[in-house]
Amino acid sequence: MVGIGNALVDVIAHASDDFLSAHDLNKGSMTLIETERAVELYAALGTAVEMSGGSAANTMVGVASLGGSACYIGKVNHDDLGDVFGHDMRAVGVPFTGGGIDHDTPTGRCIIVVTPDAERTMNTYLGVSSSLCIDDLDEDAIAGGQVLYMEGYLFDRDDAKAAFRHAAGVAHANGRQVSLTLSDSFCVDRHRDDFRALVDDCVDVLFGNDDELLSLYETDSLDEAIAAVRQRCGLAVITKGAAGCVIATADELIEVAAVPVERVLDTTGAGDLFAAGFLHGLTLGKPLAECGAIGAIAAAEVISHVGPRPLVELRTLLPDG
Amino acid sequence: MVGIGNALVDVIAHASDDFLSAHDLNKGSMTLIETERAVELYAALGTAVEMSGGSAANTMVGVASLGGSACYIGKVNHDDLGDVFGHDMRAVGVPFTGGGIDHDTPTGRCIIVVTPDAERTMNTYLGVSSSLCIDDLDEDAIAGGQVLYMEGYLFDRDDAKAAFRHAAGVAHANGRQVSLTLSDSFCVDRHRDDFRALVDDCVDVLFGNDDELLSLYETDSLDEAIAAVRQRCGLAVITKGAAGCVIATADELIEVAAVPVERVLDTTGAGDLFAAGFLHGLTLGKPLAECGAIGAIAAAEVISHVGPRPLVELRTLLPDG
Repeated sequence: MVGIGNALVDVIAHASDDFLSAHDLNKGSMTLIETERAVELYAALGTAVEMSGGSAANTMVGVASLGGSACYIGKVNHDDLGDVFGHDMRAVGVPFTGGGIDHDTPTGRCIIVVTPDAERTMNTYLGVSSSLCIDDLDEDAIAGGQVLYMEGYLFDRDDAKAAFRHAAGVAHANGRQVSLTLSDSFCVDRHRDDFRALVDDCVDVLFGNDDELLSLYETDSLDEAIAAVRQRCGLAVITKGAAGCVIATADELIEVAAVPVERVLDTTGAGDLFAAGFLHGLTLGKPLAECGAIGAIAAAEVISHVGPRPLVELRTLLPDG
Repeated sequence: MVGIGNALVDVIAHASDDFLSAHDLNKGSMTLIETERAVELYAALGTAVEMSGGSAANTMVGVASLGGSACYIGKVNHDDLGDVFGHDMRAVGVPFTGGGIDHDTPTGRCIIVVTPDAERTMNTYLGVSSSLCIDDLDEDAIAGGQVLYMEGYLFDRDDAKAAFRHAAGVAHANGRQVSLTLSDSFCVDRHRDDFRALVDDCVDVLFGNDDELLSLYETDSLDEAIAAVRQRCGLAVITKGAAGCVIATADELIEVAAVPVERVLDTTGAGDLFAAGFLHGLTLGKPLAECGAIGAIAAAEVISHVGPRPLVELRTLLPDG
């Protein structure tokens, strides 16, 4: 599997709901921020922990942890956080390309505020990650990967959007599947037409949560949104948090339950790891319901601790692991 | 309280005992490493998490978390890890001085391998932290602090050792107490004569674990070592892990039990936080046994999770908190 996304290091801190309102943060969303705002927010936050993140990167790490083969395309600088990001990919056996031609822009970071309800609110300073462009794509890797997986967050920058479409073209020209996660309902809102066109033109497997799908088709009815996506995309997987997921194809509508978690500590990475599990099952040729169940297992692990990547080898959690 | 130490960011990864033997690591100890070895070890390690650390810095953060007033003197560069370190001090209200005149040497880091038994094995690349010298000392801060607290790890570099003695002189000239933690039995072994001279000349409150005290007085008998330290230092506090601590003065020998922990996850910071609790009690004029009990509460919190600094406000864990 080949992932493309914004290469980010997460800066994770706990804070109260009052902190969110005092700093105009929209709970559960991802907001793009510039340097000044990043400095201001970070200064206001308490003690933080740094861990590699980035949506599609988390997904590729999840695939590797499940026993699959994955590589990742994204951009970091040669600074401390870039070193951390690169290390953490190599450490789990995910080859990583696309780094470091722009030495002046720092590695991107995502300031994540985790509230007592375990919900995460993300503020992303994209840094050099957003300069990902067509030249950064490793076309051989894309041509050789069974599935190309891309994050919707890339749509916030035109260069990355172009790279996205180009990568999808390379994948399809080589008979590969193209998968997209919508990433964030506000991101979908900002780029709705582009997302719709991409889903219509290029996407074989679409991931999104209920809010994101509602935003994509501008409706308040999940049934309507699912009906719309079934007409436009071969396979759509809609996650609904603790309510599990719906897998929609032209012919089928399958509900899969979430895996119960004793104590949810941090929802960061839930969608990323769900996608990892689902796609891992898909590349193994498992039935769709089983793909959803593997996704649920991977997501349950990552929300049971702080941080967006698994702390255990996910393959050991599988029924046949 | 004023702390002086090596300002480090911890790079924490879990690994097996086999990893330790494969890389010639001495479990439970702190080894100084240079750039090449740091790169090699880091490359061999799995996914890591970055958190601010540094022994005396952890202690000052603990004091602040207990409701005390603390500041810290140490050196970082203006790089990502230096920013992380500075942020995490300010975030808990510990003013931090001494940073950044050497732009060419990176911020120090401590590669910590946590084995399944929760023991930590540390490999420190000191970076710019070890260039701490007399000029970096904020003498007004030292003169104004009730207790000056310094880590034995500083003794591995001559400049820092000189700064150490100078700081102790400033503290004593202003009627303040001087406290030292021995830090590591191998460090004591490397600099035994200097440590002994310092304890004899300057130290009012000495912290160390049983191994460190045995090393200091070159004996296999803890009773002998305690007898020796009682003749040389007004107040010595010897920690013994789960067996609690012994508080030794010329007149008294007090045993204080450890606070039981349901599951010990990472012993990093145990000694640092014990010292924070003990010294916080001391500055409030509490009886010695109560100082030990506060130390035990602080240490129990930090070993119940990964990372060297408290995750909760320690003051809320105190009987009168």
